[in-house]
Amino acid sequence: MTPFEYLEQNESRFIDELSTYVRFPSVSAQPQHAADVRACSEWIAARCRKIGLDTTVYETIGNPIVVAKTPKWDAKKPTFLVYGHYDVQPPEPFHLWTSPPFEPRQVGRALFARGASDNKGQHLAHLNTVEAYLATGTELPVNLTFLIEGEEEVGCGGLNDFLPKNRELLKCDGVVISDNGIPSLKHPTLTYALRGIVAMEVRIDGPSRDLHSGLFGGTVENPAMALCQLLAKMRDAKGRITVPGYYDDVLRLSKYERAQMAKLPHSDAAYRRLVGSPKLFGETGYTVEEQRTSRPTFEINGLTSGYQGDGSKTIIPSWASAKLTLRLVPGQKPSRVIASVKKHLKKLCPPTVKLTIQGGHGGEPYLCPPDSAFAQAALKALEKGFGYPAGLAREGGSIPIVNRFRSELGADTLLLGMALPDDNAHSPNEKFDLDSFASGMQMAAHLWPLLAEASARKK
Amino acid sequence: MTPFEYLEQNESRFIDELSTYVRFPSVSAQPQHAADVRACSEWIAARCRKIGLDTTVYETIGNPIVVAKTPKWDAKKPTFLVYGHYDVQPPEPFHLWTSPPFEPRQVGRALFARGASDNKGQHLAHLNTVEAYLATGTELPVNLTFLIEGEEEVGCGGLNDFLPKNRELLKCDGVVISDNGIPSLKHPTLTYALRGIVAMEVRIDGPSRDLHSGLFGGTVENPAMALCQLLAKMRDAKGRITVPGYYDDVLRLSKYERAQMAKLPHSDAAYRRLVGSPKLFGETGYTVEEQRTSRPTFEINGLTSGYQGDGSKTIIPSWASAKLTLRLVPGQKPSRVIASVKKHLKKLCPPTVKLTIQGGHGGEPYLCPPDSAFAQAALKALEKGFGYPAGLAREGGSIPIVNRFRSELGADTLLLGMALPDDNAHSPNEKFDLDSFASGMQMAAHLWPLLAEASARKK
Repeated sequence: MTPFEYLEQNESRFIDELSTYVRFPSVSAQPQHAADVRACSEWIAARCRKIGLDTTVYETIGNPIVVAKTPKWDAKKPTFLVYGHYDVQPPEPFHLWTSPPFEPRQVGRALFARGASDNKGQHLAHLNTVEAYLATGTELPVNLTFLIEGEEEVGCGGLNDFLPKNRELLKCDGVVISDNGIPSLKHPTLTYALRGIVAMEVRIDGPSRDLHSGLFGGTVENPAMALCQLLAKMRDAKGRITVPGYYDDVLRLSKYERAQMAKLPHSDAAYRRLVGSPKLFGETGYTVEEQRTSRPTFEINGLTSGYQGDGSKTIIPSWASAKLTLRLVPGQKPSRVIASVKKHLKKLCPPTVKLTIQGGHGGEPYLCPPDSAFAQAALKALEKGFGYPAGLAREGGSIPIVNRFRSELGADTLLLGMALPDDNAHSPNEKFDLDSFASGMQMAAHLWPLLAEASARKK
Repeated sequence: MTPFEYLEQNESRFIDELSTYVRFPSVSAQPQHAADVRACSEWIAARCRKIGLDTTVYETIGNPIVVAKTPKWDAKKPTFLVYGHYDVQPPEPFHLWTSPPFEPRQVGRALFARGASDNKGQHLAHLNTVEAYLATGTELPVNLTFLIEGEEEVGCGGLNDFLPKNRELLKCDGVVISDNGIPSLKHPTLTYALRGIVAMEVRIDGPSRDLHSGLFGGTVENPAMALCQLLAKMRDAKGRITVPGYYDDVLRLSKYERAQMAKLPHSDAAYRRLVGSPKLFGETGYTVEEQRTSRPTFEINGLTSGYQGDGSKTIIPSWASAKLTLRLVPGQKPSRVIASVKKHLKKLCPPTVKLTIQGGHGGEPYLCPPDSAFAQAALKALEKGFGYPAGLAREGGSIPIVNRFRSELGADTLLLGMALPDDNAHSPNEKFDLDSFASGMQMAAHLWPLLAEASARKK
């Protein structure tokens, strides 16, 4: 029996096991679930051991980390790290769930439960694939290390501490993560780039206290107006950020990338309905998908100044502040962007107010070249697993751990999503599509030989 | 004995009576002081009766109103209305008072107590002057109606209802109010103009909910940015408001007015220290005093959007709003300003967001021509009373009742301040300067013959 046949024949047991797994309310954000989190880590460790992996549960400064390695480790084979997380988002608000979040319910080809697609279903799919290899006596052409953590939803504190102390343990040629999405089952997709981020807070101080707008109005700069005029200058009417040099380091999309992106299912009208804005707005010259994933942004996340209650209060507020996040794209360096934005703000701020810029921490953007051997292997595996031509995508958000794997382990990550847009990750009625589960397992079974080949060609 | 001599000789008794008057904690904003407010109205009514005025306490929808008329009413004499209020601001915070707010304490030539200069001292000064005329058997060349209300600090609800129902009772040729300030005892000043006000709230709606700035950033207009860009366009770098037609109706300051204003004691450096801004800022081409009192403004009183807590939240906020007040100057009409501002905002708002403008209520600016016969008479009275050349001033704030007197009674108001900049109105340690009290009484004693003459010349 081949691993592929094994996966098909054991599917209903795999669904049962996933159902057991999602019963653990392993909510890392809620202290009352600390014991559930721990029990969940033990369950997944036991599952790893049962299929024959060399498994250790590591205590960390946070929740336990499960590390499980394939048997018959062979230094001549390439090694890959499969990352997943057993912790889940809080289930609240409960009343919006059709059935209790930790009582799995199968409806057709969907399994509803908190954690089903974020992320228990996906790393279980990878484990099941390894079981299929081992149980059928098929030689795995790679060494695999499963790294399953319990704090992804709360900032990966334990893992961030664990990683630099365990570089040897986790050493690998590449990382595979299935914790992102694909547009549909007919559009299996490799996500090869992520945006980075820079966060800062801008504060404008004017008069030493709120002033009476009648007695003093007209003689001092209004900090709220100064803030508006300052921020207004950061972006032009074409959606371009006006900070000098802001686009200098941006890697331009290749024709190949733009062509790939254009194949993704998308409708401006449907997208507009999804976001709810009167009209879409983005940088001129780019499609919505390109704007969303491949162009940097300058967003105001919050504004605070003066009086915010009912009615009016006739004051010139003493200060005004704005929270900002800038999404960066491959090529951009957070430190350079922070410096140029700060410089530009300082240059434009009038001497009638005092400018303070706080924060300025950042996360790197991420790019795994889509024409690399590993990426091309992943595309083939996706195509074989899902039965449709595989595409390339970038994502607009950030997955910080991907940069940590690059910096700590020197390894690129393949983001091989199995979640669908309507899986309700982080929302009530989270589900995992069981066709995606099945196709994902087939994809993973194809992946290891293809990656082994690619690795051999690289040498 | 002349009224002037009588006022001098009775000064210590007048101070004792003011001390009695300020012992009433007539705080209109605080329900627990309702009985004190009422007792206070009875005390001032009794005081009016004692000096021989024909006095009635009127019940209103709010606090009682005291109306007291001079005896021997003569239809051939001009009639003036003297307005004052017996209610006071809340005294809190108590711990900042050097002595209890309702236990008057005389230190040198200052009487400390809540209500001393806002406004009990001033209307008592006017009453004492009338007493001086009556007690010395000097014929008053005018008829006087005292209108002393008890809700000035809470919006004049009772008076606003009372006024249109009692036009005959309150009929007059002019109104005198001493409830504003003068720069110093050496700068007696007639305030002849006040700014008006327009208040509105601008709201920008974008996406139907806060959006993830990574997943969606770059494809929709950020409402906070749209608001900043919209408001930023309302005022240029020279401090000019850019709403088309905004200055069309503004009455220009005459050379005479500007010369008068330039005589007021002012130092940009001291003013800057007072407001605490790094540098002063106002419309180019005008002095600080002109900017503060005679030029319209566009002030943002508050900004609200998105996340305002600690740290950062990576969202595109669903909406953003700003509270605005615009100070208007003589010549401008609130309704016209509201219409032109709304039109301009609507024209500039991009179609990528939805604009809502709420409110838009306004108060008229006020101007009593400084070259009018009454104003010139008032200037003479100020000069004689205080012993220094009298000046003209505008004020930057609004005194709504002045417009009500104009619309309901058809009478202009002379604003003859006796309060000094350090009198701490509305603040702890409120005081009334007893030299100002004495000079104010002398001024008022000169005022009536001068106004009677002016009135005769007008006819």
